Amino acid sequence: MSLIPALKSLLGDSHVLTGPDMARHASDWMGNYHGTPLAVARPGSTAEVAATVKLAAEHGIPVIPISGNTGLTGATYTEGGLLLSTERLNRIREIRPASRIAIVESGVILSRLHDAAETHGLYFPLWFGARGSAMIGGVLSTNAGGSNVLRYGSTRALCLGLEVVLPDGRVLNLMSELHKDNSGYDLKDLFIGAEGTLGIITAAVMKLVPAPRAHATATLAARSLPDALTLLNRLQAASGGLVEAFEYMPADYMARLERIRPDLGIPFPAHRDCTILVELAATSPALATETPHGTLPLTDLLEETLAQLMQDGLILDATIARSTTQRAAMWARREAAAEIGAAVKPMIDSDIALPLDRVETFLTRIAPRLADIAPGAETVTVAHLGDGNLHFSVYPGDPSRALYDRVIHAIEDIVQDLGGSFSAEHGVGLSKLNSMARRKDPVALDLMRAIKQAIDPGNLMNPGKVLPPKDASE
Amino acid sequence: MSLIPALKSLLGDSHVLTGPDMARHASDWMGNYHGTPLAVARPGSTAEVAATVKLAAEHGIPVIPISGNTGLTGATYTEGGLLLSTERLNRIREIRPASRIAIVESGVILSRLHDAAETHGLYFPLWFGARGSAMIGGVLSTNAGGSNVLRYGSTRALCLGLEVVLPDGRVLNLMSELHKDNSGYDLKDLFIGAEGTLGIITAAVMKLVPAPRAHATATLAARSLPDALTLLNRLQAASGGLVEAFEYMPADYMARLERIRPDLGIPFPAHRDCTILVELAATSPALATETPHGTLPLTDLLEETLAQLMQDGLILDATIARSTTQRAAMWARREAAAEIGAAVKPMIDSDIALPLDRVETFLTRIAPRLADIAPGAETVTVAHLGDGNLHFSVYPGDPSRALYDRVIHAIEDIVQDLGGSFSAEHGVGLSKLNSMARRKDPVALDLMRAIKQAIDPGNLMNPGKVLPPKDASE
Repeated sequence: MSLIPALKSLLGDSHVLTGPDMARHASDWMGNYHGTPLAVARPGSTAEVAATVKLAAEHGIPVIPISGNTGLTGATYTEGGLLLSTERLNRIREIRPASRIAIVESGVILSRLHDAAETHGLYFPLWFGARGSAMIGGVLSTNAGGSNVLRYGSTRALCLGLEVVLPDGRVLNLMSELHKDNSGYDLKDLFIGAEGTLGIITAAVMKLVPAPRAHATATLAARSLPDALTLLNRLQAASGGLVEAFEYMPADYMARLERIRPDLGIPFPAHRDCTILVELAATSPALATETPHGTLPLTDLLEETLAQLMQDGLILDATIARSTTQRAAMWARREAAAEIGAAVKPMIDSDIALPLDRVETFLTRIAPRLADIAPGAETVTVAHLGDGNLHFSVYPGDPSRALYDRVIHAIEDIVQDLGGSFSAEHGVGLSKLNSMARRKDPVALDLMRAIKQAIDPGNLMNPGKVLPPKDASE
Repeated sequence: MSLIPALKSLLGDSHVLTGPDMARHASDWMGNYHGTPLAVARPGSTAEVAATVKLAAEHGIPVIPISGNTGLTGATYTEGGLLLSTERLNRIREIRPASRIAIVESGVILSRLHDAAETHGLYFPLWFGARGSAMIGGVLSTNAGGSNVLRYGSTRALCLGLEVVLPDGRVLNLMSELHKDNSGYDLKDLFIGAEGTLGIITAAVMKLVPAPRAHATATLAARSLPDALTLLNRLQAASGGLVEAFEYMPADYMARLERIRPDLGIPFPAHRDCTILVELAATSPALATETPHGTLPLTDLLEETLAQLMQDGLILDATIARSTTQRAAMWARREAAAEIGAAVKPMIDSDIALPLDRVETFLTRIAPRLADIAPGAETVTVAHLGDGNLHFSVYPGDPSRALYDRVIHAIEDIVQDLGGSFSAEHGVGLSKLNSMARRKDPVALDLMRAIKQAIDPGNLMNPGKVLPPKDASE
């Protein structure tokens, strides 16, 4: 029997999509990748995922896992492979509040986990724009980051255990709830961030934290970017490590924001060089109780600290959110990044990570290089500054491939020289394969290939992603 | 040239030890393993480590890395292999306070890193008894834990980057300072905890945190063990997550303590069933400033919370440390664990991890099993309760191997049934190879073997450790 009828007999006709029914899965949401899968299989259980993988392996057909389809690197693109959607593995199996864990399947949407945790007074501390569509399987497979990494770490730091279907259809049960376990190699973290090239994650044990009882949010104009790191450390010291977000929006960001979303306003028209959005969150009642004069101790703490920093000359201006409406307005300026970033074409985007104290150096060095390569090109910069993650986009006007490459090479040259990474939180997928070939330590690439070969000798799990071919050169 | 002269010519005569000069390295500190290494090589740089590994590989001689030699599982035992000591790789290469990182070599003693961080007002938050001898290489290779895991995680969570000499002598440079990096598989975490079976860690980038400005410490008698988890969550909620240690010492511990170290005193003679040592630490000035009446807000917070818990009936009695002397006296009772544990022979020790809410179940189930297998056997229990890590020791009187095995099997049966691990923080080494064979998911073992084969095809890196032979059966 050929693969599609075999799958239909395994999963039921309605769970094997072909032809136009595959439209929703075959293209990525940004519209950059339009693939032609053989079919989309939608297994409803771990056992069905295993059986699907086995069937595909028997037919020599590659399997490409897909969940919320909110990725940015083309990691689910395929010509002729079988898309395996985890969307029906959508149960929150269990929440154990006393142990602060949630046991979830890989098709659970991130915001559903947020909601479920909230009913127990808990929080799943991973927060990014696509939270209403992204699913746990993709979140784990890309080791997703976002705005709270500064305090809670990336997805890897939030996962205690995994269930994985291996390329040969065996189920690897690593569903540990343990906070300490030194029984052999760390397989869990190998599958997290592997973008489906080593196996398919079907379920996970995730950590929860106490839900913040209070937030204190401010927008401020720092004197300079190097000062911003001092600011962050001063805020952390004053608050005892309560900073949850520390987002950087410089002059190029404000210029674009003003043009595309004038309704959102510019916080400090006279001081646009280094706007910072900072948010503290507290779980202790001592910091989260309303005081008689209407403010919270946490807000007072933020205000006092900012006043001191202004006196010390590190801050030029600052506004504190006095209501949830004001807080939302501050976040709206930051969350407009995707919209205002994509408003001009062509766009050369990047997702780079730098050592915390080298972000300024990068910006200082890239400016003259760009002036040389693409004179007059607009840039838009926005950063999770607290963890060194910069989204730096260039708008050269001219859409030629040669120019695109020159810009990317210039960015990567400086990033590599500063000990940074060309991929901070989006992963590699297809779009950064060339960067992997160019920039990754060749010894590390060799090891990764050896591991891929050992776990997926038939190269059937999301082939052609993450690892560039051995002979790739630039 | 045979290996030893070749090594002497590479490293200098004084850095290749043989015969009686190897005594310090050839046996473990507990005196359980006495090996006969071919020699002890003490390279002084990463390049010399690489050259040593290459030389040994050319001679087909296994290499066994050793650093502080404080391990508990026989992981550095060898008959005929080359011990490679990292003790001369002892530089703290750099501390960057603004970025909160330390770049250290693998021969740096843990307490030296503590001291160096302290001069910058920072803390390296890994704390355990052997800190004055243990070195970073071993700390990383065993993913060491200790008392602060609850708040800061194990070693893996504290490491940003690694430098590793691979089995073929190539140097893998993963010395990242980045907090986000999604460029391919997570190789770093594969080498952490691999106990030297995949390569030799020569240097690392470690995270630092702000040094606590104040501690508040108490000893309390909880009503029951299940109540203790409620206590922990209440203390975390009240303090906003400031609990750094939550250590459990039940009646069997107190009985042994009273017998072996009567000078240390028993905190609550009438309530011995569930003694807890709790410590909060604060970095924020608001919680760490001395108040006019002589106490700290953090101590007040602890006192108020404990008073509330006592009123709610969860606590039977409590004492708060009012001075550093009182704090030290509380910790002395907990840190006497190694001494009082080893004071009776023969001892069957264990290092198990359990889901946080299943520690009580374990103790309830093991008691009747032990009464059956080893009637009258004394036990000593002590736990890092905040992370589910239990050191449960049995003293059966009779030292026969058969009885030893029956006790270990009984413990492991229950641990496995409850979703726990037979090795929480000490690793596998030699002493838990049988447990790996018996208890580890066979699919996971297969994968680990495939990875070992892919990275060390000649099986020359610490062979025979961590992974039991394929045909091992119990």
